[in-house]
Amino acid sequence: MNDKVNLAEAFAQISEAYSPRIVARMNDYKIVVVKPMGEFVWHTHPDTDDFFLVVKGSLTVKLRDRDVDLSAGELFVVPAGVEHCPVAEEEAEVLLIEPLGTPNTGDAGGEKTVDEREL
Amino acid sequence: MNDKVNLAEAFAQISEAYSPRIVARMNDYKIVVVKPMGEFVWHTHPDTDDFFLVVKGSLTVKLRDRDVDLSAGELFVVPAGVEHCPVAEEEAEVLLIEPLGTPNTGDAGGEKTVDEREL
Repeated sequence: MNDKVNLAEAFAQISEAYSPRIVARMNDYKIVVVKPMGEFVWHTHPDTDDFFLVVKGSLTVKLRDRDVDLSAGELFVVPAGVEHCPVAEEEAEVLLIEPLGTPNTGDAGGEKTVDEREL
Repeated sequence: MNDKVNLAEAFAQISEAYSPRIVARMNDYKIVVVKPMGEFVWHTHPDTDDFFLVVKGSLTVKLRDRDVDLSAGELFVVPAGVEHCPVAEEEAEVLLIEPLGTPNTGDAGGEKTVDEREL
């Protein structure tokens, strides 16, 4: 059984930007902590929505037609198939939820793609 | 498309205890805000895990073999089929995620069962 997760302790164990770590699972979904810093990469998840909750700091989820500016305590769900690019001017702490197996760079691939890893 | 959700504003719109409100959707899941106060009811979700994130205050998720004490910034996933009973000594603010259609009282039913409602 999953134990409880203290988010502050989880984020404290991550030093690298955009290096997501799985902290729990819910059915076939992964609960992920990540520290965005700078601009990520434009990408799309064709088959799944993508849940973002900002725990600390700020994150802009750029869409092609608008920017969604998120502060701590704000969440946003990017719909499946919608191109987006996360950008953080300063290091932020973000909780992501998406199906297990969802690549962090979606359909874009490239050098920022990383394997799924537990914390 | 979902707009962003500010959790503080969402919780401010709820006055009743254990009256969950859907604030967003991710695939076939509901993102729910709820204010626990007092003891809920022992119940099980036979077919789904159940995600709890305490946003403000404290919540104890009682299991039959232990208590999981959650403070703000802590999350816990109750596995499918595991009997549990949420208890909050003082009003708390909690984010829940579970499949659309999941009854709040699981297999227990009873007077605390409520229909799914958007905020």
